[in-house]
Amino acid sequence: MQEFTVTFQPGTIRLRVAAGTSIMRAMNLAGLGTDFPCGGMGKCGKCRVRVMEGVSDSTENDRAHLSMQDFKEGIRLACATKIHEDMIVEILNPKPLQHNILINSADRIFDIKTHLRKLFAEISQPSLSMHKSDWQRLEETLAALDCNINNLQAPLSILRQLPETIRQGRNQLTAVLLGSKVLGIEQGDTSATMLGMAFDIGTTTIVGYLLDLISGQEIEVVSTINPQAQYGGDVISRITFAGKDKGLDTLHKAVTGAINKLIGAAAEKVGRKRDDIYGISVAANTTMHHLFLGISPQSIGVSPYVSVVNRGLVVGASELGLEINRAGQVFVLPNIAGFVGADTTAVLLATDLDKNEHISLILDIGTNGEIVLGSRHKIVACSAAAGPAFEGAQITNGMRGAVGAIDHISFADHLEFTVIGKGSPEGICGSALLDGVAGLVELGMINKRGKFLEPDKLTNPKSLGFKDRLIQHEGTWVFLLADSSETRHGRPIMITQNDIRELQLAKGAIAAGVRILMETSGIQSDDIKEVLLAGAFGNYLNPHSACAIGLIPRELENKIRMIGNAAGTGAKVALLSAEEFSKANDLAASVSFIELGSYSKFNTIFAENTYFKLD
Amino acid sequence: MQEFTVTFQPGTIRLRVAAGTSIMRAMNLAGLGTDFPCGGMGKCGKCRVRVMEGVSDSTENDRAHLSMQDFKEGIRLACATKIHEDMIVEILNPKPLQHNILINSADRIFDIKTHLRKLFAEISQPSLSMHKSDWQRLEETLAALDCNINNLQAPLSILRQLPETIRQGRNQLTAVLLGSKVLGIEQGDTSATMLGMAFDIGTTTIVGYLLDLISGQEIEVVSTINPQAQYGGDVISRITFAGKDKGLDTLHKAVTGAINKLIGAAAEKVGRKRDDIYGISVAANTTMHHLFLGISPQSIGVSPYVSVVNRGLVVGASELGLEINRAGQVFVLPNIAGFVGADTTAVLLATDLDKNEHISLILDIGTNGEIVLGSRHKIVACSAAAGPAFEGAQITNGMRGAVGAIDHISFADHLEFTVIGKGSPEGICGSALLDGVAGLVELGMINKRGKFLEPDKLTNPKSLGFKDRLIQHEGTWVFLLADSSETRHGRPIMITQNDIRELQLAKGAIAAGVRILMETSGIQSDDIKEVLLAGAFGNYLNPHSACAIGLIPRELENKIRMIGNAAGTGAKVALLSAEEFSKANDLAASVSFIELGSYSKFNTIFAENTYFKLD
Repeated sequence: MQEFTVTFQPGTIRLRVAAGTSIMRAMNLAGLGTDFPCGGMGKCGKCRVRVMEGVSDSTENDRAHLSMQDFKEGIRLACATKIHEDMIVEILNPKPLQHNILINSADRIFDIKTHLRKLFAEISQPSLSMHKSDWQRLEETLAALDCNINNLQAPLSILRQLPETIRQGRNQLTAVLLGSKVLGIEQGDTSATMLGMAFDIGTTTIVGYLLDLISGQEIEVVSTINPQAQYGGDVISRITFAGKDKGLDTLHKAVTGAINKLIGAAAEKVGRKRDDIYGISVAANTTMHHLFLGISPQSIGVSPYVSVVNRGLVVGASELGLEINRAGQVFVLPNIAGFVGADTTAVLLATDLDKNEHISLILDIGTNGEIVLGSRHKIVACSAAAGPAFEGAQITNGMRGAVGAIDHISFADHLEFTVIGKGSPEGICGSALLDGVAGLVELGMINKRGKFLEPDKLTNPKSLGFKDRLIQHEGTWVFLLADSSETRHGRPIMITQNDIRELQLAKGAIAAGVRILMETSGIQSDDIKEVLLAGAFGNYLNPHSACAIGLIPRELENKIRMIGNAAGTGAKVALLSAEEFSKANDLAASVSFIELGSYSKFNTIFAENTYFKLD
Repeated sequence: MQEFTVTFQPGTIRLRVAAGTSIMRAMNLAGLGTDFPCGGMGKCGKCRVRVMEGVSDSTENDRAHLSMQDFKEGIRLACATKIHEDMIVEILNPKPLQHNILINSADRIFDIKTHLRKLFAEISQPSLSMHKSDWQRLEETLAALDCNINNLQAPLSILRQLPETIRQGRNQLTAVLLGSKVLGIEQGDTSATMLGMAFDIGTTTIVGYLLDLISGQEIEVVSTINPQAQYGGDVISRITFAGKDKGLDTLHKAVTGAINKLIGAAAEKVGRKRDDIYGISVAANTTMHHLFLGISPQSIGVSPYVSVVNRGLVVGASELGLEINRAGQVFVLPNIAGFVGADTTAVLLATDLDKNEHISLILDIGTNGEIVLGSRHKIVACSAAAGPAFEGAQITNGMRGAVGAIDHISFADHLEFTVIGKGSPEGICGSALLDGVAGLVELGMINKRGKFLEPDKLTNPKSLGFKDRLIQHEGTWVFLLADSSETRHGRPIMITQNDIRELQLAKGAIAAGVRILMETSGIQSDDIKEVLLAGAFGNYLNPHSACAIGLIPRELENKIRMIGNAAGTGAKVALLSAEEFSKANDLAASVSFIELGSYSKFNTIFAENTYFKLD
């Protein structure tokens, strides 16, 4: 078979191809393939190249899409032009594939350049006068396709597969590469197929996004409750459980088992195989990060709260028991420090905080609240132990934000509330607790210290319409939201004095964290340009209520934006862009971590912030 | 605890040590430890250093070993001098530990610098104001000990062990490193213990050398028959067996099982544990190399005889099922091409052929003969299929060189022979066959074509004394070595016409190989300065006989030297010196491999060389 050399400009990538190969095929072989809308059918006219040396006749497709002037200048369609002699070809649109993630009306744009990539290789046939080993022939073929490959490496398992793969595939194989390391070899040309999944492993919920690693498109989203929840609701109880005999292994297998199920479910939904999935990225808080990796989280749980490892890791999927392609790799984002984990790094990656000139405050509120403040000049972060009040736990009628939960309350003329899934209420979730207490504060029905005023001491005229709801229950004052006739279970739903205390502790912790970050970095409220609320709770709360109770400084109310599951977005960015993943290490290391427990004025500031500010 | 900085010259290696640390201890921490005969007891006076900055009082040991002049110049003993302030210290004898292997009266000298090394690290204690992760503290400590370490990596298994190792070892651990990769962590200071084993895996025999990787000393030698022999005596029958169902796995496990037994035996003999062994190096022919690695050797067995992989490999010992320390690594020397395997590369490494100005011919004669010819300017090599005659197989009364074998024959006045282990003979081994046929040629009892002359046609007067031994047996002439009354089993031992034919084919193959290497590289006999015979058979044969039958060109007889198991020596070099191991790749790649089968005149040259040259 006759072969010719085609040289691509810019970049001077050279390769040998069989006579009759199209320029587009050669571009794909050289790893220069770009996004051609029609897929090489000669219909879109987007794959224009300039043939600088070498003759190429015009084709019907060329004539449909190119002007006479184009033609004179050597412009041709890469898909329609075949190679019949040595050629030099200029690629006119060498722009790499980009990804555009919408994160609340702001665009996050980055180049798609995944960690793993596939190269289709046609290996030469050995002879008595060319007795190179299988490996050497593969190495030389790949080096010809990509000049960045040098000192090619492979694990023993690949060397063991190599002779059969070459011979059964009739010298055609696709190599799966991580840098200059061959992690997989597949018979024939499989270079068009490469899926990946980005995971956000929360203490409560695990979300997985199935992505096409070649186009960058999101194909499917799946989620599940973190099955570790049965061994403890928050990170501290998980750490305690992990310290018991076989506890670590149990928790590790629980989370990897759940992820395996999600992988299977996502693949099945879109009619693909587990084997089509090559890359997984993971964002998680520090404890979930360690448990996912099977690393003991004990030291995170006791002062001085150090983790075992923070920096970004690349681990073979099989080492973690994850059932994807056997070449599959897991890209675990770096933690920052203490309880500020890889999920916060992912939020930073999603929001591009380190590129902004203006200062942002980012809150990811949950049992542990992570707080980040800064801009491209400096970023500070801390973690505040808010406790479970925001998730409805340890609240008299509290429940998660599920069907039957009162999720929002308003006090306009009379009390109104909405219930998730409509119907009669069963309890209240965190966002409703926030609304309720905010209303009581604004109506003057509780004082600065959070204590209910007795009905006859109410002074605010607006509060009078709600006076009847302030009743005695088991010896203390409570605020009745729904009486027994209104609820599904026939028991009343109320906000108790104790519920208010719990919320005060929770909001006091977060507010103190915000205050201390501002103090240590010398930033005033006025300097803050935007407040970004990440995560499920942040997405659901009423910003006015959050400001009314002092969870977020009141003066920032108009600057609040919800950014959804930014940790998940960051995990997607890390999966689609090796560059962004590697940047994440520097980003995480650049954040100044403030350990609230070691801040001398923490107790005072925390106590102050448990109070409500009355107008 | 107070700490000081000590800076070593030359090289400007800096580290922090606790007050009171001796300079010698600091040198060891910095990886600058040299070979102190007394082990730091202040007795030998060899560890002289010059304190360039920083005060150090003289000690009793100093005074015993240093002159007043020394003293004035700041010379002290490193073992006797403690660090009590920041110091700059000049190392006066920075010569690295060297290894000296005697390979037949020629010295092979190289620096001992093993692939794996151990660094003892004292990890800092974290606090609320220093909340670095375990990994980061380890990374920083190691980087302070060795400035060449950067971007430290570790497999997940090490990260999982890390928190316990740090805490149970009270912040003291020893890291086992391969470059900047942590492969093992051990509690406390284990840096003085590191053993390794070099293996020469032959088709018939496996030899293992137990070495101290710190001093370079050989501690023990062990060997065994390659248990693969039960599945076929030569490489071709092993390749055939490997092609059967589960054949490859059977052969792979047979050899790794045998190596595991040798490791256990060697360790036990010297009272050490398997766990003390960290490195293994392997030299083997191409087929043994593939079977050891569990790689199919099928393609080596059929034209064009290509291997799956040639270049040097580093593989985790556990991946191969080898039972040594779990950080253990296996360093497999590179093959050259075709049947010229890593054992030949090892021979080149042992003989330093690529450094010699003069031309050497190296022969490793066995079932497959490997032949190398060259100097630092050019090296050519080939493999010649000699068949099993040299090992006594397919010879009428042939046997291996074991107890009962006639191993040497002389024809002075009357026939004399020696028997291995004394006593009555049972058969003859290869070296005796060589002597026997050489004698018959020199006595003119066989002609140029190897055919026996009938007794009445003998003309050489010296042959008359042996005439009676030329007898008829089963219809052909044979030469009687021992009659039935002289042997252990009561059957006669003879050299038959067929035995001579077998030897002719064997010696013809080797001699043709030598001739073709000379032809293709334009080298004449006179140009060859030395002939080195490697391997067991080479070590045992009578050089005069080898030349008399034309196995080795007659004119080279006085240039022959035996170099013993040079492949084993090369494996030791590769184990003790990472640099030599890495050089082996270039060395193997630089050898011009001649495939005899593709050499147009091979058949003619082979046929010519089956003849005997008579005076």
